[in-house]
Order: sequence, then structure tokens, then C-alpha cells
Amino acid sequence: DRKTVRQEDSKTATKTKPSGGDLDLAAVYVSDAQYNRNIFFDTSPQAVRLYLLYNHWVPQVLLYVFILVDLCLAIFEDPAVVPLPVWATMLVELICLSAFTTRLVHYAKVIPRDKFWKDPKNICIIVIVLLSLLDMMIYGALKATDHNAVRWSRVLRPLLLVNVTEGRQLRRAFRSIRNALPQIFLVFLLFIFSVLMFSLMALKLFVKRDLKTTEGEPYFTHYLDIVFDLYVLVTTANSPDVMMPAYNANFFFAIFFFLYILVNTYIFMSVFLAVVYNSYKKYLKEEVRQLVRAKRHKMARAFAVLQERREEGAEPVVTRDCWNQLVRLVQSDISTAHRELLWSVSDDKNQGYIGKLAFVQLADLLNIQVITMKSRPHPLQTLCPALYLSPPSRLLCRVVQHRAFVIAFDLIILVNAVFIGLDEEDPVIGNSEWVFLALYMLEILLKLYAFEPRAFFSRHNFWNWFDTIIVISALIATIVNTAVESSLHYSPREILDIVFVLRVLRLIRVVDSIKRFRTIINTLIRIGPTILTFGQLIVVIYYIFAMVGMELFKGKVRYVESSDPQQTDCGNPLLKDSAFANRNYCKNNFNDVVSSFILLMELTVVNQCSGFTAVTHKSARLFFVLFHIVVVIIIINIFVAFVLEAFSVEYSVEKGDLQTSLEKKINELELAVAQEQQEENLVDSMETSDNDLGSGQSAKSKPALMFKIASKRYRTVDGLLQRMFEADLSPDDFAAEEDADTPNFSNPIFSSA
Amino acid sequence: DRKTVRQEDSKTATKTKPSGGDLDLAAVYVSDAQYNRNIFFDTSPQAVRLYLLYNHWVPQVLLYVFILVDLCLAIFEDPAVVPLPVWATMLVELICLSAFTTRLVHYAKVIPRDKFWKDPKNICIIVIVLLSLLDMMIYGALKATDHNAVRWSRVLRPLLLVNVTEGRQLRRAFRSIRNALPQIFLVFLLFIFSVLMFSLMALKLFVKRDLKTTEGEPYFTHYLDIVFDLYVLVTTANSPDVMMPAYNANFFFAIFFFLYILVNTYIFMSVFLAVVYNSYKKYLKEEVRQLVRAKRHKMARAFAVLQERREEGAEPVVTRDCWNQLVRLVQSDISTAHRELLWSVSDDKNQGYIGKLAFVQLADLLNIQVITMKSRPHPLQTLCPALYLSPPSRLLCRVVQHRAFVIAFDLIILVNAVFIGLDEEDPVIGNSEWVFLALYMLEILLKLYAFEPRAFFSRHNFWNWFDTIIVISALIATIVNTAVESSLHYSPREILDIVFVLRVLRLIRVVDSIKRFRTIINTLIRIGPTILTFGQLIVVIYYIFAMVGMELFKGKVRYVESSDPQQTDCGNPLLKDSAFANRNYCKNNFNDVVSSFILLMELTVVNQCSGFTAVTHKSARLFFVLFHIVVVIIIINIFVAFVLEAFSVEYSVEKGDLQTSLEKKINELELAVAQEQQEENLVDSMETSDNDLGSGQSAKSKPALMFKIASKRYRTVDGLLQRMFEADLSPDDFAAEEDADTPNFSNPIFSSA
Repeated sequence: DRKTVRQEDSKTATKTKPSGGDLDLAAVYVSDAQYNRNIFFDTSPQAVRLYLLYNHWVPQVLLYVFILVDLCLAIFEDPAVVPLPVWATMLVELICLSAFTTRLVHYAKVIPRDKFWKDPKNICIIVIVLLSLLDMMIYGALKATDHNAVRWSRVLRPLLLVNVTEGRQLRRAFRSIRNALPQIFLVFLLFIFSVLMFSLMALKLFVKRDLKTTEGEPYFTHYLDIVFDLYVLVTTANSPDVMMPAYNANFFFAIFFFLYILVNTYIFMSVFLAVVYNSYKKYLKEEVRQLVRAKRHKMARAFAVLQERREEGAEPVVTRDCWNQLVRLVQSDISTAHRELLWSVSDDKNQGYIGKLAFVQLADLLNIQVITMKSRPHPLQTLCPALYLSPPSRLLCRVVQHRAFVIAFDLIILVNAVFIGLDEEDPVIGNSEWVFLALYMLEILLKLYAFEPRAFFSRHNFWNWFDTIIVISALIATIVNTAVESSLHYSPREILDIVFVLRVLRLIRVVDSIKRFRTIINTLIRIGPTILTFGQLIVVIYYIFAMVGMELFKGKVRYVESSDPQQTDCGNPLLKDSAFANRNYCKNNFNDVVSSFILLMELTVVNQCSGFTAVTHKSARLFFVLFHIVVVIIIINIFVAFVLEAFSVEYSVEKGDLQTSLEKKINELELAVAQEQQEENLVDSMETSDNDLGSGQSAKSKPALMFKIASKRYRTVDGLLQRMFEADLSPDDFAAEEDADTPNFSNPIFSSA
Repeated sequence: DRKTVRQEDSKTATKTKPSGGDLDLAAVYVSDAQYNRNIFFDTSPQAVRLYLLYNHWVPQVLLYVFILVDLCLAIFEDPAVVPLPVWATMLVELICLSAFTTRLVHYAKVIPRDKFWKDPKNICIIVIVLLSLLDMMIYGALKATDHNAVRWSRVLRPLLLVNVTEGRQLRRAFRSIRNALPQIFLVFLLFIFSVLMFSLMALKLFVKRDLKTTEGEPYFTHYLDIVFDLYVLVTTANSPDVMMPAYNANFFFAIFFFLYILVNTYIFMSVFLAVVYNSYKKYLKEEVRQLVRAKRHKMARAFAVLQERREEGAEPVVTRDCWNQLVRLVQSDISTAHRELLWSVSDDKNQGYIGKLAFVQLADLLNIQVITMKSRPHPLQTLCPALYLSPPSRLLCRVVQHRAFVIAFDLIILVNAVFIGLDEEDPVIGNSEWVFLALYMLEILLKLYAFEPRAFFSRHNFWNWFDTIIVISALIATIVNTAVESSLHYSPREILDIVFVLRVLRLIRVVDSIKRFRTIINTLIRIGPTILTFGQLIVVIYYIFAMVGMELFKGKVRYVESSDPQQTDCGNPLLKDSAFANRNYCKNNFNDVVSSFILLMELTVVNQCSGFTAVTHKSARLFFVLFHIVVVIIIINIFVAFVLEAFSVEYSVEKGDLQTSLEKKINELELAVAQEQQEENLVDSMETSDNDLGSGQSAKSKPALMFKIASKRYRTVDGLLQRMFEADLSPDDFAAEEDADTPNFSNPIFSSA
């Protein structure tokens, strides 16, 4: 590929102006660099147009809709929450499969043929589609002839989430897991060895003592049962029950369990986390380093396409005109002022053209969120200046902007919390709700009076949006509730539930007023997007286990509405008088996909499966142990590792150079929000206080347009890490990285540590 | 202090030879530097002698014995495991207190008076002793007049562990906790806010629904009960019971619990860990940096005491003679060869004297474990060379040293594991034990034949020692068991238990044969010493909670031996038919100190306290919540943070410079163990394979004395970190650090991140 760039290099050097097709191509490179896409598309104008279509948000959203529909089919398929005929679900599935195929064909047209067939994720999608079709045919044929059939291909559905082009983050999460596996496996072997040794010791110590459990069953007499019981003790699910019989016999046996818990629950579980964390950290750095190189490489290609030579032998450059066209193509909604600002940062010496090094920064510059703040007068000021600028109106504005106003409303919120806690059937309490609603509405209206409405509802004022939506929803829900109540003389629980939830949510705002909390919350919000990736990961794993679990356990445990919940047997005589039935766990079953997901969530927290081994066979424990290993030992640890790393990076990384230069430029141009406000405002992007920016009286002394950088810190851990590694790479290093989407690092091995 | 050094500097410059008193003083400085002691003692010869006595191991061990006795008094005091009369325990306590006072008086004589009174740990000990005396008097008086009395000063006893001079590590652990507290507290407030919000929502959602728990009690009707139940859900102890009534009513409520668990159990608990980890890391680095500076400072003082000037105006130096005397004083058991080696590293140019920079290294050089290996011929070779060097004997040696020999015995161990698992009353299995014992004995004898015995049992061959001790103990126990059995026609369970445990322990050796496991195990062993510090920390916290718990709950729950364990009420009618009594938890009580410790261990794993709130009052929950916050949220997280950091450091730090220079010297002198063996041996210090070093036939071609460095890595994380920061400090930086034992860093604040 390097050669191609060189060729284009020499080719474009003779041209004077880049054509429209060249601009399109460069725009695609820049946008790929901006969003870290690593797709090796054909550079022919036709392929570029197809590629632009491929990256358009409509087909991407459609794809996810089809994946969602495909996954949700489990709700309607046997065992179903809402049963639908087989032909209906099959028809929908066929539509979904054809949508995936269409998307794949589109992809095949965008990238070179050999690249397409080399990419494992394409092969995966083809295999999934083909196997699904095969399974549907077999299932249809067996059902038609009244045979028993299993829809086994449903296990493959969540893998689509991983293998579509947009599942980059998810693939990366899976890659980190794969990289941590060799080490986890070593520690796991040692851990299992330790469990086996302790079990053998327990067998020898207790088998001849004729101890009984509380249920009157023999205690610790079979080796494999002991192994399982001690494994569950690691999850803490059966503590202290598992040790009580031994402890009742002799208190020295508590030492045995103490050592077991120390070694296996505390030390080994910490070592698992340590191994996962270290491998995650190492791999993350390697991966981000590759991403940074790939980004540079793409920007270098874009430059090669657009470059011109001012004179023979001079360094190639990109002109301002060309750059402007490019930026408009890449980000059509960018304001002229913002674009000018970016250009003045790139073209530091005001030459009218920029070199390669300055050009390469473009993708990063576009990624820095700059908030353009137009300091407009308040609409009321334009409508009726005499009234709005009159002394009482000014006083009102100053009152609303005062710190005491915020504190007063925080106190109102606290009083409201107490009132919510009281019984709402008391008429005083019931009516107080109207008072609070009125107060909150008044607060919003006052703020809208004091602040410029467009600034108040600008995109970054998370809490203003949150407040307004919650208060207005609460108002609507309360009105609907009162209307329904006065017509039916009874208020339906569903509406009341919504009203209550909205009332409580309103209280959350109090956190925002305390500055020290705000920083923690903002860190959490910054972690947010990646938590979504983990959410997808969990959905993939849960879905697979739910499908398998449903085939293994469906209908074995049933929830039967009964007058005496104590006497139920969960619809299965095997569970009569079992702890599972007595504790009323009957609804924890695999009878449909929703119940399965809820059960799997419970299993993630505490791994209890006695009911299922009772109704099937002891070997069913394998399913639950496997679930524990995959979800708790691997995925939860990766999640914790991610949170740890996110906080570590927050603590250790300084602001990026590029951002500083942008800020410097903003300050230089005297377009910055005043310094004291910066201190207050720039720390976090989700601010309520727009201070007096939007208010009329102070606007005159300031320029009409101001900028601020949305956040001092990068929005994601990735962004931060990219910035870190950019410093490591020499600015002239534009080495091509082939196929950076699927890098293949050597796995870190424990012994190399 | 700097001034003092300068004065001594000018004073010693005129002397020609350091006196014996100077040597003593310098030796004390070096040994303080070596063990990171930071005590500012008087430099008068008398005080130095007192200080040497203070640091002698006998008074130190005695002190810990007295502390242990003092702590163990709880076993004999009311509520007692073994009741003793009050006068007896009081007498013993008085003896302990006088021992602590003696030690403190000794300390007061060693250090300057103003330092003594400025040090909070001395004040603490004085206060503890005085309060204990006061408490004993009040208790004695009240008891004599038949009043009810509480021995409240027992809570103070574990604080002695923290405040004695030797409790350096423990104090450091407490300091890291104190430093993490402000941040933990912020996150904790947010966490509590979140729990309160969810509880309020739960109250509004469920209070009017008339749901019942499995026990038939109203579900989620009181706000504080909900808060407590949801707090317990964070510990996962009452999952899924707490959600079942709501889930049975409507499966949408599962979403509420899902969100709750996601936010509070997973996200907030991870954030706690992240905050603790980051603050731990930051603080550890700062603290270790100070330790390194204090060490240098002490070495510089030692140098100032010993230095001589070769000629006027030249740099001060320390002569070889003086250095030798010093090293002999500091480490009396050092071999001449080892000392010569260290000198040749320090005096690189072979000048006969060393400067300040080389001298300062001494403390670190002494800390590097160099194993001196004398390649002696096998004793049998000296006794009967003809036989030992005969071809059959040589063949035998070669067989024993072969890899297949290890594998063969690993297989025997595996077969043995299966035999242990089988029923030992079968005569074949019973007798097989003798076969295995014979085989293991044979293995040890063969190894002693093939390897030089003193090398085989050298201090660093952990696994050889482990093996031999376990096998011989098993042999003795089995013989005793058979003897007892044949005389009594019955084998007592206690002896059998020991036999079984020893048999199983024998199997652990198999792990050592697998190289990849060995590295993990060695990392764990390296973490070992610090786990002891955490052990002390846990003992301090447990002891305090046990003392308080015993006063609050003693006698409330009793274990009554009964025929039907299902029908017990734990000696308290309030527990009749409660889950606590039905599950037979009666032995989980605070009736004596041993039961309390075991119960606290169970509470660490799973926080269940329903029984205790039933027999006392709901406010007893506060005790259990407090315990959870202190132990699980703070201490366990600090422990996990420590393991994480230990593994991170292992992954990231290269071998120290100093060690490399020592190794280089060893290699230069051609005294190193051959390279291929190094690769094999030096990786870990706890090796079995001494290869053919000790065997006779290869000894002739090698020098009679060889060295190897005990471990490529530093034994502790501290050591590693010290090495890391040594690189940061400029070698000429000898700035004095006052009072480095109680440094007072500015606490890292969350908002500064």
C-alpha cells in the first residue's frame, strides 16, 4: 500500500487542483480516521460512493434494527412469552437474514475481493446465515412430520452483533478476553487444583463422621459433590450453610473453611482480577497504539490525494480552499466560525496553506468538541427592551443567577423527598405534590427568563434537559392521574407507578449542586459509552446461555399461582419441600427468554442452582459452573479492569498537546469564555450554570461569538490513551498498518512476566 | 541534623582511624538503612549500646509474645472459652502492661526526650496502658461490690500491635487507608444517596401492593427496612430472596432490581476498588520514595562517621579495613567469600578504599541474597570413593537426576491421589499406604545419594524441605496410628485426621514439577510477607469488633445440642421457627472470642445478621453494616489493590542496576553457576533442582566456591518499588528527611484528578 501512496504522490504532484472525486476520497479517509474505521475499500470513485452509502447512518441503524428483531424473535418462538405460529417467526427471520445478506453483498462491493474473503468476520456472517437457513429447513421438516425439533441455530444469532462491521468495540472486547485467556487458564488450573486438594482433604476428614446437613442428608460423602459445594463456596452463595455441620461437630473445622476461603475466595479471585487487569492494560495499549498508527496512515493518504506543490522541489501542501471544501464534506454541520478556528490552529503562521504535519492533525481537531457560543440577547430583550432591562427585571435575573437560588431549590428538593416518603393518601401530602410541581415549573420559567433559552437548552447542558423533561413528564402524568381518578374514582397502579418514579427521579438533581460529586459523576458518565459495549457483551453471553438453558430446563419448574406460597412444589413433585420451592423461587426458571434473562442476572449475582439439579440431574451443575466461569471470572473481571484503568488514566494523563494549542488559539483570538468562568465551566461538559453568558446585560462588552472546549478531558478512555501514544510516535512516522482492525499480537504469557 | 553531620564531617576529617564506638554507630546506621528503621537515637556511645539492645531480636520477640498473651486473655475472660478467675487474668494483664512499659522506657532512653514526646505512637501506648489500668481498677471495684461491669479497655489491646516500634508495616497499611478515606468517603456518599433514592422508589412502588415475603411478613413497607434490605443486596447476601415477592407480582419489577444491582453492586463497588487502588498506588509510591531518601541519608551519616582523608583536600573515603570491620559488625554471619565479593563490587577499580557513592550502596548490597555454594564432594565419595564413583553408582546418580525420574514420581503421586480418594477400610487400599510411604522415602534417599546433602537441604530449597518434612511426619503419624490401633483395636479420629491431612499435603508437590505453575506460585509466595501485614490488620479490626459484639450479643444465641436440629430455637424463644434457627446457625454467636472470630469471618464472606436483629433490636444492624463498610469496602479492597499492584510491578519493572552489577562481578570472577543452569535456577529461589552441582563427578572442573543470586526479582513489592525510585533520585541527593516514619503527605483529593 505504501507503494500506491507513493504513486499517487508523484501523480498528484503534477496536478494543480484536486478534482471532486479526489475530495470525496480524501473526505472518506479523514472521516475513517476520525471514527477509527479500518476498512480497505477500493479507491475508484464508484467504490468510494458505495462506501459512503455503506457508512451512512440509515443502513447502519437499519442493520441494528434487523439484528434486534432477529434477537427478539426468541420472545415469540417456542418456548414463547407471546406464542406466534412458526411460519410467522420464520418469515420474519428470513427477512432479517436477507437484510444481513444484502448488507454483506454491499460490503463485498466496497472492498477488494481478496480482502473480503480473508476477513474472518465476513466468513462468520456467511456461516451464520447458512446455518440458520439449514436449521430452519430441518426444523420445518421435522415439525411438519410431528417430530421433536430443536432450533439450535438460535445460539448463533448474538454472534451477528460481534461480526458486523460496526461491532468494532465489541470485537475489541472479545479480543481482550482472548488475549487474557492463556493466563487466566493457568491461574484457573491452579485454582482448580487447589479446590480438588481441599475437597480430597474434606472427604477424608468428614466421610466417616456421619455428619448430616440441616436437611438431614449425609454431609460431604461424595467427592464430586464436595468439589461442587466448595466451588460454590468460592462464589459465597452457600456460606455459611456449607460449613455449619462441620462447625457444629467441632470448631477446629472452622480453620479448614477459613483457609479455604482465604486461599480460594480471596487470594485466587484477586489473582484472577490482577491477571485480567494486567493483560487488559497491556493489550489495550498495544491496540490503541495500532489505532493511532492506522489513523495517521489514513490522514497521510488523504494528504497524498489533496496535495499540491507551490513550486518545483518544495514540500507538498494543501491549500486553504481545498481544506475548507474537505472539512465541509467531512462534517457538513460544522459552523463557519468553528472551521475558521480550526484552520487558524492548523495554519499557525497564516500562510494560506498547510503541510503534511499540520494536515494530519485534522482528524483529532475535528474530534475535539468545541462549543460555539453565540452571545445573543434574550428574546424578551429584543421584544420588549424597556421592560426586560428595567431595574426590577434586572434584580430578578440577579436573584435567579445567585448561588442562594440554587441552595433554596436544593432545600425544596429535600423537603419534597420527605413528603414523597410520607403516605400520599393523606390529603395534605397529596396536595403538596401540586405545590412542588408548581415550584419546579416556576424554577424552570425563572431560569428561562434569566438565561437565553437557546443557551439554556444547548446540547451540552445535560442537567437542564434532564430537569425540564422530568418535571414536565411528572406534570403530565400527575394531570392524567388526577383526570383518570376523578372519572373512575380510582387511580390505576401503572400510572401511579410512573408518577412515583418521576417524582423520585426529580430528586437526583440535588447531586449536581455539589461540586465534588459532579466530578465523580462526570467520570462515571465518561465511562458510560464503554459500559454499553460491555452491555452488548453481556447480551451475547446471556443470549447463548439462555438458548441452551431453555432447551435443557424448559417446563421443568413452573410458577403456579397458589393461595399458600409456602406449600408450592413449583409444578414439579421433585421439588416438594425443597428449599427452592419453600423460598418461592418458582419464577426463576428457563420457561421463556425473559425469565431466562432474569434468572441469568440472578445467577451472575449469586450462583444458586439447587432447584435445577433436583429436577434434572447433578450434571446440570456443569451448566451453572460454566456460566459462573464465563460471566463472573472472565467478563465481570474485564469490566472491573476497565473501570480501574479508566480511573487510573484519569489520574495520570495530562491534557493533550493538541487541545492545549486549540485553547491557546481561542484565548489568543480573545474569543474565550472569561477565565474565571472557564475555571468553573470547563471542568465538566454537563453543566447547568451558564452564568450570565446568555443574559442580556453583560452581552455588550463581549464579542458576539465565543468558543469553549467542551471538556478538558477526552470523552473516553480510548481518546485519552490515543493521545498518550501519539506522544510516543514520532510525528514523521506514517508507516502503513495493514489490516489494523484485526491485529494479531503475540499473547502475553505468564512466564514472560 | 544536617548541621550535625557537617560538624562530624569536619571533626572526623582530622582523625586517622575510626574508633570502636564510631564503628558501632556506623553499624547501627547501616543496619537501620538495611531494615528501613527510622528511629532518631542519641549518638552517645551509651545510647548506641542501648539502641543495639533495643533492636536485638530477643526483646522484640518477647514484646510480641506479651502482646499475643495480652490479646489471648480474651479466651479466659468473661465471656470465656476457658473461664479463669478474674484475679488470674488481671495478674497476667498487669505483667503484660509492665512489659510494654519497660519496653517504652527503654525506647525513651534511646531517643532524645523531645522526639519521644512528639511521637504519637508513644503517646498512644501510654494512653492504652493507663486506660487499661483504670479499666481494671473500675472493673475490680464494681465486681467486688457485685455490680455489672464491662471490660471496655479490651478494645484498645489490638492497637498495641499498631503502635509498637516494630509495627512499621501495619502503620503503613493504616496510613494508606487513612489516605484513601477522603475519596472513599465521597464515593460512599454518592453510593448511599443512590441506595436512598432506590429505596424511596421501592417504597412508593411496593408499599400499597400488599406483597408478602415467603415468611408471610409485609414486604417493603418501612423506609429504613427497605434501605437496609437494599444495602444487604449490595453484599449479594439476600439475592434473590429480596426480589422474589416483587418479581412474582410482576416481572417488570425485575428491571428495578436489575438497575439497582448494576448501579450499586457492580458500578459502585468497582469504583470503590478503583478509588482505593489509585490512592493506594499514589500513596505507596510517595511513601517508598521517602523510605529511599531516609535510607540514603542514614548511609551518608554512617559514611560521615567512618570517613578518612587520604591526603589534604582529597575526597573523604572509607578504607577496606574499616569497611570489613563494619560489615562484620552489621551482619555477623556473613561468609568471608561473600564479603570479599561485595567489596570487589563496591571497590570497582581495586583501590583499597571507596568513596561516598560506593559506600552508600552497602545497605542494598547486603539486602541482595547471594547464595554461596560450596561445591563439595559427596560425603560418600570421601568415605568410599571406589564404590561411589563406580559405574553402577554413577548410573544411579544419572537416573535420579534425569527428568524421567521426576515424571515417574509425579505419576506415583497421581495414583496415590486416587488411592487416597478410595475407602481406606479396604485392606488393599489400607496397605497401599505403606507402599507409597516406602516409595517416597526411597525417593528422598535416592536424591540424598545423588546430590550433596548439605546442598539438598540448603536454606532456599523450599520444596526439598517441604517434601522431607511431610513424608517423615506422615511416616511417624502412620506408625503411631498403627501402633495405637493394634493396642486399642480402634484408631482415634484425631490421629487419623492428621494422617489424612499429611497424605493430601504430599500431593501438593506435583505443582512444583510444572514450570508454568511454579512462576505463579512464586509470585504468590513473594506476596506472602505482605499478606501477613494484612493478616495483622484484619486481626486488629476483628478483635475490636469481636469485643464490641461480645458485649452487645453475648448469650443471646446459644448452641444447644439437641436430637432434632430442625426444631431448635438456639436457646432463645425469639428465634423459634426463624430462618436463623432452622438453618442451624446457632453456633454463629458472640458467646466467646473464638466463636466471634469465626462469625466475623463468615460475615466478611456473606453479611447475614437476621438472627441478631431478631434477638436484640433492629438497630443492631448498624453494627453489621459498619463491619461490612470497614472490612469489605475498605480492607478487602486495599488487599485486592495490593495484589493488583504487586502483579503490575512484576510485569513492568526491570531488574535493578545494582543487582546487575553484582551479577556482572560474579560472572567476571568466573564464580557464577554455569549459564544454562542459571537460566533454569535463578528464575526462582525456591527450586528443587540443584542439578549436578552437589554430585561428585562434575565438581573437579569447577572452582570450589560459587555464588548465585537468590532471586532475579526482589523478594517484596516494596523492594521493587524502592529500586524504581532509586533511579529517580540523583545519586548525590542526600537531603535529610526528618521523621520519615510518620510522613504527612497532602491527601490526594478527588477533584485534583
